[in-house]
Amino acid sequence: MNTAIFGAGRIGKIHAGNLVRQPGVTLKVVVDPDAASASALAAQHGATTGTIDGVFADASIRAVVIASSTDTHADLIERAAAAGKAVFCEKPVDLSLARARDCAAAVKRAGIACLIGFQRRHDPTFAAAHARLVAGEIGDAEMLIVTSRDPGAPPVEYLKRSGGIFKDMLIHDFDVFRWILDDEAESIHATGSCLTDPKVASVGDVDCTAVTIRTKRGRLAQINTTRRAAYGYDQRFEILGSKGMLQAGNHRPTEVSSWTDTNVSYDKPEHFFLERYAKAYALEMAHFFDALAKGAAMKTSIDDGVKALELAEAATVSWREKRIVTF
Amino acid sequence: MNTAIFGAGRIGKIHAGNLVRQPGVTLKVVVDPDAASASALAAQHGATTGTIDGVFADASIRAVVIASSTDTHADLIERAAAAGKAVFCEKPVDLSLARARDCAAAVKRAGIACLIGFQRRHDPTFAAAHARLVAGEIGDAEMLIVTSRDPGAPPVEYLKRSGGIFKDMLIHDFDVFRWILDDEAESIHATGSCLTDPKVASVGDVDCTAVTIRTKRGRLAQINTTRRAAYGYDQRFEILGSKGMLQAGNHRPTEVSSWTDTNVSYDKPEHFFLERYAKAYALEMAHFFDALAKGAAMKTSIDDGVKALELAEAATVSWREKRIVTF
Amino acid sequence: MNTAIFGAGRIGKIHAGNLVRQPGVTLKVVVDPDAASASALAAQHGATTGTIDGVFADASIRAVVIASSTDTHADLIERAAAAGKAVFCEKPVDLSLARARDCAAAVKRAGIACLIGFQRRHDPTFAAAHARLVAGEIGDAEMLIVTSRDPGAPPVEYLKRSGGIFKDMLIHDFDVFRWILDDEAESIHATGSCLTDPKVASVGDVDCTAVTIRTKRGRLAQINTTRRAAYGYDQRFEILGSKGMLQAGNHRPTEVSSWTDTNVSYDKPEHFFLERYAKAYALEMAHFFDALAKGAAMKTSIDDGVKALELAEAATVSWREKRIVTF
Amino acid sequence: MNTAIFGAGRIGKIHAGNLVRQPGVTLKVVVDPDAASASALAAQHGATTGTIDGVFADASIRAVVIASSTDTHADLIERAAAAGKAVFCEKPVDLSLARARDCAAAVKRAGIACLIGFQRRHDPTFAAAHARLVAGEIGDAEMLIVTSRDPGAPPVEYLKRSGGIFKDMLIHDFDVFRWILDDEAESIHATGSCLTDPKVASVGDVDCTAVTIRTKRGRLAQINTTRRAAYGYDQRFEILGSKGMLQAGNHRPTEVSSWTDTNVSYDKPEHFFLERYAKAYALEMAHFFDALAKGAAMKTSIDDGVKALELAEAATVSWREKRIVTF
Repeated sequence: MNTAIFGAGRIGKIHAGNLVRQPGVTLKVVVDPDAASASALAAQHGATTGTIDGVFADASIRAVVIASSTDTHADLIERAAAAGKAVFCEKPVDLSLARARDCAAAVKRAGIACLIGFQRRHDPTFAAAHARLVAGEIGDAEMLIVTSRDPGAPPVEYLKRSGGIFKDMLIHDFDVFRWILDDEAESIHATGSCLTDPKVASVGDVDCTAVTIRTKRGRLAQINTTRRAAYGYDQRFEILGSKGMLQAGNHRPTEVSSWTDTNVSYDKPEHFFLERYAKAYALEMAHFFDALAKGAAMKTSIDDGVKALELAEAATVSWREKRIVTF
Repeated sequence: MNTAIFGAGRIGKIHAGNLVRQPGVTLKVVVDPDAASASALAAQHGATTGTIDGVFADASIRAVVIASSTDTHADLIERAAAAGKAVFCEKPVDLSLARARDCAAAVKRAGIACLIGFQRRHDPTFAAAHARLVAGEIGDAEMLIVTSRDPGAPPVEYLKRSGGIFKDMLIHDFDVFRWILDDEAESIHATGSCLTDPKVASVGDVDCTAVTIRTKRGRLAQINTTRRAAYGYDQRFEILGSKGMLQAGNHRPTEVSSWTDTNVSYDKPEHFFLERYAKAYALEMAHFFDALAKGAAMKTSIDDGVKALELAEAATVSWREKRIVTF
Repeated sequence: MNTAIFGAGRIGKIHAGNLVRQPGVTLKVVVDPDAASASALAAQHGATTGTIDGVFADASIRAVVIASSTDTHADLIERAAAAGKAVFCEKPVDLSLARARDCAAAVKRAGIACLIGFQRRHDPTFAAAHARLVAGEIGDAEMLIVTSRDPGAPPVEYLKRSGGIFKDMLIHDFDVFRWILDDEAESIHATGSCLTDPKVASVGDVDCTAVTIRTKRGRLAQINTTRRAAYGYDQRFEILGSKGMLQAGNHRPTEVSSWTDTNVSYDKPEHFFLERYAKAYALEMAHFFDALAKGAAMKTSIDDGVKALELAEAATVSWREKRIVTF
Repeated sequence: MNTAIFGAGRIGKIHAGNLVRQPGVTLKVVVDPDAASASALAAQHGATTGTIDGVFADASIRAVVIASSTDTHADLIERAAAAGKAVFCEKPVDLSLARARDCAAAVKRAGIACLIGFQRRHDPTFAAAHARLVAGEIGDAEMLIVTSRDPGAPPVEYLKRSGGIFKDMLIHDFDVFRWILDDEAESIHATGSCLTDPKVASVGDVDCTAVTIRTKRGRLAQINTTRRAAYGYDQRFEILGSKGMLQAGNHRPTEVSSWTDTNVSYDKPEHFFLERYAKAYALEMAHFFDALAKGAAMKTSIDDGVKALELAEAATVSWREKRIVTF
């Protein structure tokens, strides 16, 4: 199966590397406005560089991976829908909820397969926790606590275009919330603060947040995030159920411990998402092509992308207007 | 130093046992409306049984421990203030904030020493986390996450008189919040649900809660609680600072692990507060008499009792009225 | 029940403190060649100071605690046997195996109760591991690995009179071996080295050892020890069974962890035996008086003391003569 | 660079998969007496099947991977030496020490590069522990404890040809010992027992062992192994140094923990060597081609293969003859 990828940056490289390991899948074309990046990635995997128009005109290309900048996602999804090509698209669908909804409608009308890149659902630890919950190990889920902390804030230039912390960073946590509790929000309360760098406030954003969601079935979820955890990338959640609790913990680079006259120490968590979710990205790509081959549903549909965005938008409103938002 | 104790129930026995181990301190009188309980506890420690009036009329008694039912606390504190006796009083001061404030005023006017029993501040793990934060180990505190879960709900009869989960259970967490962040709430949002037993709802209460506090200095705190954690008593907090994180974890009865073909397992946390906070109760009592002897300030004053109650009341309003409460 | 204690040093104080907490037990006399120590300890517990002869002549004294120097143990046990008093004696019975055996014979002839202070059997963690093994949790025991490390070597003056590392330090581990495997040695191999301080070698001793025991039933045990673990007192064992493994791990003073840009760290283990085995000493004393009251067998009899010494002597021979010793 | 692989079995597949991911490296020929296995592996990686003679006659093949049965290793190494091809050979060099030494001499005379597959040296956890030791984190190494347990015994047919547990299984641990302590054995004591299955004894072997090594510099090492750990593959070591201890612990498939009314449980360790050492095998292959390209020394030379075998042979003698073997 021939494929093309849009975007040859950090995440594009990851997806391309995973894509070429899928049996029977060929990376035919790499597209990136930065010609040097496109050439380098194409050369690495025996592909050629190309253009957006070229890709959509190429009938031999059956699936596209969208790993380009956020503002291109919706256009590319809609063109893929029009061209009848399957889509693997990085989150988010779009920063505008209306646009994302239109996009989802286009995808449905066209009937194309479309996966939105919430890679955490594919992480072995997170997926095992989910599977064990579904299998009944801790009874009915009652409460979910999500800890989601980045090791450091991106540049302010990035923040300006990011849509704000709720759409840029917590969108993953909102998806985790929906996936784990298999429930929808009845109301949401979000607050935030700018504590790490005044530049974040200068672009109208916050760098740490505290969110509470009450679900339609009365369950409670809390999410806490920061752009800067000095000890690295902290990705945990815990599910309290009627019969126990499941915790999904951090991963460490090695299992060495050091016992000295000061303390007993272990490695910090994996540095950032590329390390922490390396397996998740590989499994996500394998799932995409496996589901495509079987005509099965994608684990994270474009609807999931829209619904996570709805929560992000409601959280933004809750924070800005200092009020609880009810759905 | 002669002392008396009001209340010979579960917590009264703990306090009495710790009291008699303080050098130079004698338990002279035990008072309890249940004559059998009073006699048994008195006999165990070589004390006599007595009455409230008798205790306050006895000039040789310099300090009283109030471990009787909540509705007696304020009266007994005020009588102790009038009689010039030092007070060690279990939380809460009272379920009525107004009454608690009056009580605090009476204590101040009388100039008596008064400790309110927030024993968690004396727990070695919690106290070490606090001390290391104050020493600067993780820079400035930015976020606090408190997990506080009981192993099972008390009888509905108890719940009816408890003042509700925020005053009965979270009052400890509100004190932890104030102690750890050394800051006051600017606004509070609380929600809750009745998930474990419909009887809890029938008395107008909830059994799990999710609280978010924004402090005057812009820091964020989240508290999650439940009346029923199937795995036992779960008492943790974590402080995110500008330079790292401090976690205060659960204690286990033993350090045995079992490696089988199923999994690798450890003991559950200590069963409930009597086990988990056994050392804290002992250290709290030692602190009380040490501070008395030195004329030093109590670590948890009656003002701390009032302020935790203010938070509990605001949380109750936030939950009932589904709105953010601003101070 | 009136009792006396011989020895008012470090371990004597611990035992005295635990003794006076036993219901119905009174510490009547403290004996120590150092008059100041004896007086201080006696005063603390409302006892008087006395002499060895006085204690054994006092018919009201029914039990004695022997916490004096090692070279006095055998004499005092024999005098207690002659006087018909129950004995709680710190390990070892004696440095001479022949003398220890004579002592055991005297105890048996007299029919007195006699507990030898292998406190580890009373430690909650160690005892839980033992109980779970006995209950069949991991099937049949096949292998035992004991890690036993002190935080620092005692003064050379102490080492000279200690009987060597195998009798002084590993005697506890030999008792653990016998207790856990409920089996006896068929052969033993021991080696050692002087790595921490040449002074240890100058008195004919070693400071770290590696011991292997093969039991009569074919099970294998390994013990590793050092006088100096820079990170503190390390007391662990693990039992491999046909159906799994039980590990008994170290205890920590607090459950605080610190997550920084360097690592994630926990407390070192409890500093040394007084901290690590505080509960074990208390439970050991409670067991002594409980068994006395019930006429039940002591968990660690004088025979256990003799048998651990046999292993220590065989290990010493194995190390010195560089050969396997067979029983 | 063209390469060939001998052996298309379990480990051959692993090595082939890692080999083809090396940049600039091509798998040209697969050789296996089982034609179906050879064809399948060749097809998977775009290689052809071939013969031993064909591989050594093919001047375009510069390196060979030997993953065939143990009894073919020495022949193939010698033929590779004669043909001037670089060698990546699974352990052991040979079950005969004399033959292994001849082989090593042939490799040296020919001057070919030769890596022996002690993959544990490439494991991220083990390698990090080693690097931190070398960097001085815990001062001078004094003691090494190696725990090395398989999840289940191989078939008796395998055991018959395995050379016995010391050459088959502990050879890895002997290499770890030499690598970590950077020292050689002065004496060795080994004992063993047959506890899991009488069939093991029927072929003159044991299934659990306890080994002690004293090094020329006086350091001590203990190794404990079993063929059957019910809880899976247990691969740990700890190094006691003058300033602390480094532990290399097991890896888990996921970081999920489950808190129930029974206990708190974690995943068992990775199932067996293919899972546990997946990264090590990949890094080992990368190291091989990297060292080849740079003309650098292999991390595990054929001399390391010989020396580990010397220890395995001495251990076998010690166990059989019940005596300490001195070098």
